[in-house]
Amino acid sequence: MASKKLVNSVAGCADDALAGLVACNPNLQLLQGHRVALRSDLDSLKGRVALLSGGGSGHEPAHAGFIGKGMLTGVIAGAVFTAPAVGSILAAIRAVAQVGTVGILLIVKNYTGDRLNFGLAREQARAEGIPVEMVVVGDDCAFTVVKKTGRRGLCGTVLIHKVAGALAEAGVGLKEITERVGVVAKAMGTLGVSLSSCTVPGSSKLTFNLAADEVELGLGIHGEAGVRRIKMATTDQIVTIMLDHMTNSSSVSHVSVQSGSSVVLMVNNLGGLSVLELGIVADAAVRTLEGRGVRVARALVGTFMSALEMPGFSLTLLLVDESLLKLIDAETTASAWPNMPKVPVTGRKRTRAAPSRPSETPDFTTEGLISKRMALVLERVCTTLLDLEEYLNALDRVAGDGDCGTTHSRAARAIQEQLREGPPPGSPAKMLSELSLLLLEKMGGSSGALYGLFLTAAAQPLKASTDLPAWSAAMDAGLEAMRKYGKAAPGDRTMLDSLWAAGQELQALRNPNANLFHILTKAVESAEAAAQATKDMIAGAGRASYISSMKLDQPDPGAVAAAAILRAILEVLQNLEDA
Amino acid sequence: MASKKLVNSVAGCADDALAGLVACNPNLQLLQGHRVALRSDLDSLKGRVALLSGGGSGHEPAHAGFIGKGMLTGVIAGAVFTAPAVGSILAAIRAVAQVGTVGILLIVKNYTGDRLNFGLAREQARAEGIPVEMVVVGDDCAFTVVKKTGRRGLCGTVLIHKVAGALAEAGVGLKEITERVGVVAKAMGTLGVSLSSCTVPGSSKLTFNLAADEVELGLGIHGEAGVRRIKMATTDQIVTIMLDHMTNSSSVSHVSVQSGSSVVLMVNNLGGLSVLELGIVADAAVRTLEGRGVRVARALVGTFMSALEMPGFSLTLLLVDESLLKLIDAETTASAWPNMPKVPVTGRKRTRAAPSRPSETPDFTTEGLISKRMALVLERVCTTLLDLEEYLNALDRVAGDGDCGTTHSRAARAIQEQLREGPPPGSPAKMLSELSLLLLEKMGGSSGALYGLFLTAAAQPLKASTDLPAWSAAMDAGLEAMRKYGKAAPGDRTMLDSLWAAGQELQALRNPNANLFHILTKAVESAEAAAQATKDMIAGAGRASYISSMKLDQPDPGAVAAAAILRAILEVLQNLEDA
Repeated sequence: MASKKLVNSVAGCADDALAGLVACNPNLQLLQGHRVALRSDLDSLKGRVALLSGGGSGHEPAHAGFIGKGMLTGVIAGAVFTAPAVGSILAAIRAVAQVGTVGILLIVKNYTGDRLNFGLAREQARAEGIPVEMVVVGDDCAFTVVKKTGRRGLCGTVLIHKVAGALAEAGVGLKEITERVGVVAKAMGTLGVSLSSCTVPGSSKLTFNLAADEVELGLGIHGEAGVRRIKMATTDQIVTIMLDHMTNSSSVSHVSVQSGSSVVLMVNNLGGLSVLELGIVADAAVRTLEGRGVRVARALVGTFMSALEMPGFSLTLLLVDESLLKLIDAETTASAWPNMPKVPVTGRKRTRAAPSRPSETPDFTTEGLISKRMALVLERVCTTLLDLEEYLNALDRVAGDGDCGTTHSRAARAIQEQLREGPPPGSPAKMLSELSLLLLEKMGGSSGALYGLFLTAAAQPLKASTDLPAWSAAMDAGLEAMRKYGKAAPGDRTMLDSLWAAGQELQALRNPNANLFHILTKAVESAEAAAQATKDMIAGAGRASYISSMKLDQPDPGAVAAAAILRAILEVLQNLEDA
Repeated sequence: MASKKLVNSVAGCADDALAGLVACNPNLQLLQGHRVALRSDLDSLKGRVALLSGGGSGHEPAHAGFIGKGMLTGVIAGAVFTAPAVGSILAAIRAVAQVGTVGILLIVKNYTGDRLNFGLAREQARAEGIPVEMVVVGDDCAFTVVKKTGRRGLCGTVLIHKVAGALAEAGVGLKEITERVGVVAKAMGTLGVSLSSCTVPGSSKLTFNLAADEVELGLGIHGEAGVRRIKMATTDQIVTIMLDHMTNSSSVSHVSVQSGSSVVLMVNNLGGLSVLELGIVADAAVRTLEGRGVRVARALVGTFMSALEMPGFSLTLLLVDESLLKLIDAETTASAWPNMPKVPVTGRKRTRAAPSRPSETPDFTTEGLISKRMALVLERVCTTLLDLEEYLNALDRVAGDGDCGTTHSRAARAIQEQLREGPPPGSPAKMLSELSLLLLEKMGGSSGALYGLFLTAAAQPLKASTDLPAWSAAMDAGLEAMRKYGKAAPGDRTMLDSLWAAGQELQALRNPNANLFHILTKAVESAEAAAQATKDMIAGAGRASYISSMKLDQPDPGAVAAAAILRAILEVLQNLEDA
């Protein structure tokens, strides 16, 4: 069976892909009857030099993605990995000549089929009296000895599109553009590496096979094997091997990059590499080059010249001076040219100092008495949670991953450790805020974040006052934050059920003659009842909600823990009152 | 063994990827000690609203690729597929507040971890007096029934970055931006599909498994499984199923796109799909939408929100009016926002008529005698090649794929068929040009292209004259074209060896008193000697050059064929002379 591909037909895949690009980019048009895309504002090019490129399909966005003002005039695409038809190349040349362009440059990657077919179309066009020049780009750094056919054309070709496009847009003549890009093409090098190969639509075979611990170095863009295989290594190591190879002056195909050189760096996704990995490669390439004293003038990172879905990348280095950089920086409307700042990569500050935490506002109160009371409350909460560890884990095993008790114990031990280091702040607001940070860091998971949210929000009303209505307001603020960000509501079988029930009773604290212990007792009883009631609830949020709509016949462990915490608080406060 | 990944360490991969992005984009800076990227011109934002987003890593270029003027102010990244740390979110908020921004909007994808951590940082920042709002984006169209946690945040989030960014750049206030993007977020939908899953760095497991003939519909961006599996089908069929699902009004998560609607279409690569396939998907999506009467106002095609290297894509539809389109079109320097023309996709002409072949210049001569002679020559060339078929194939089996004779016979039969349809043109230039096109089309391969090149170039000098020096010039022009585009030289064991040797002898035709048959006989003998001499040559070009430097001890079949063609021509001309 052929490999899985998103195509309508194998035969039509190159046509469909080009049609899709043209459909989505109103700057382009297809040339009827041919696999050719052209600028839709072709008629505006009268009196200028036009640039045509192309080659086999499967290298998208090359080349049609580079059509636009300031880059290519048009592109002729072949079938996948196959040179375009001579008749289509000739048709593109004629269409471009017809609008009154003063000359046409064909930019061709150095592959035999492309050279022959573009060359033939060129000869035929010249026979018709159309001035056509041709530059054959070979930027491959893979081979270390002379090949008669020269270096293969790889991703560096896109830089030639850019330079030639900027020159043509500036009104430079055909002869001068041809000469200038000929020089630029010699000042660059490209090397590819891949973790695996690719499959051509309609085929079931990878174009080469690699062991699980090997990568292929120096491969082409048609899935052809490279110059050697190396053992899988870190990205830094692989990039170092590549840059060594590319700049090794004993290799005929090297690019003369050395300390003091200025370069444009291209980091090109060969198709199937994750953008995460591409970023890691880019980081390694910039660091390694800078470590060698090379000045990275510009860095282009993205998918420019792919080999279908090959999970690999290529690095291209182009030696540049200021005048060449101006051409690289020139404006273009080409869709696949990156949005890139026109400033050097090397030599700027890449980090910014983080601001310090804002200085604390003075505590509302720092009474030692409050601090001592809160320490007692926290101690009792901790021992309560530690005692419940096994029971909570057992409850959690019904619906979750059985670690609810463990999570709460972790929080308890973190609080105990904190208490051993010193008493809690005397200000309730500050105490809740510190507790929030501690749980967030040490308790972890959604529970840590939810308690963190609750405590952070609850701390706010207590900044201005610590009277009884302020504590009710604190409870409400905490509940509101928990509902808002956690998206649970009462009845969803979460810890919110207990806290919500308690919060309803605590509203009574807002009355001028409220009786704290009476209200608190009712709140705890209500929370405990709510916790027990969760056993008849269908989970509506949190992890248990994924166990579809099953009834679980056991209370929610988070709700049980929350009710237990409230009871612990009540008991300590009552003991203190009774003492 | 963990899956092959280009990383330096699993633990550091999110940091390295962000560092790479920042290194290559001088518009960005890292916030020291945090996985946070911020605009490097932060200080220019005084008095404006700032926009922060973020989430787990593995979705690159989201979100840091969308930092820039007109889009995000900064981004906080978590580990792969993990919500960012609250402390880092808070540090980013403080850094942005410190420069004098007048408010901060957090744009958060709807996932529990992100909601909780961004929510907590927001509450803490508000406690410090910083005005922070938060919009939670849920654009997933996968689920057809209500989920309490709401729709997941997917690629549509990038459109929210864009709209909010354009508003902030225009100086709109925090409250109004928050309200506007809240409305926009409700007017869009996204659905994903994938051919396979992805693996998290350090893990060996695909996050889900699919049969070879299945695709996963409605998946998230963390490799989580989707709503259903469908059988592999054509791209058109899959896109149709997706658009049906997304716009089905009986699904709670549908987007109300119908005939007459205007939409922005996003075609998003989930990471590992080839760009060729992405183009095919884009083509199918635009065609299908337009077929339903939907007006595609803009189409964004590329990698915006990936799931590592997942080979799939998502479609996003956003209902737009002119005022919303202005925000989508507004300028931005964000590196991952595409270079996109600000004109509608639907309603324009996507093809251009191909120019007709230029009208022929009148023949130099149309004498019937010349036409008849050339017909006789061609007939003999054809029978000669057909007689040689088996011998040439046998020679080719030594160094190539054994089809040299077959290729030449195919050419011979094509010429014979052409001759049966009518006599060749009386003009030698025209005859060679027509022969060139015929061979190119019917002979195929490199041989067809090389003969095509030879004949096209050779025809040119014969346009002005058909005297003997013109025929020598024609031979030279043909050889020159063959050398130039084929990159073979004499001595490389190709057909050029025979033709070159003949060409040297034909120079004598330029002498005023040249004896045609004497010179032609010497040329043919020289070509035959050269063909035989190829058996001692090392292949330097063409396919045989890949058999390294082995001596083959048999002549090159292409050289043998070329010499035989020359002898056939000589014999016919001599017969005619003798007759």
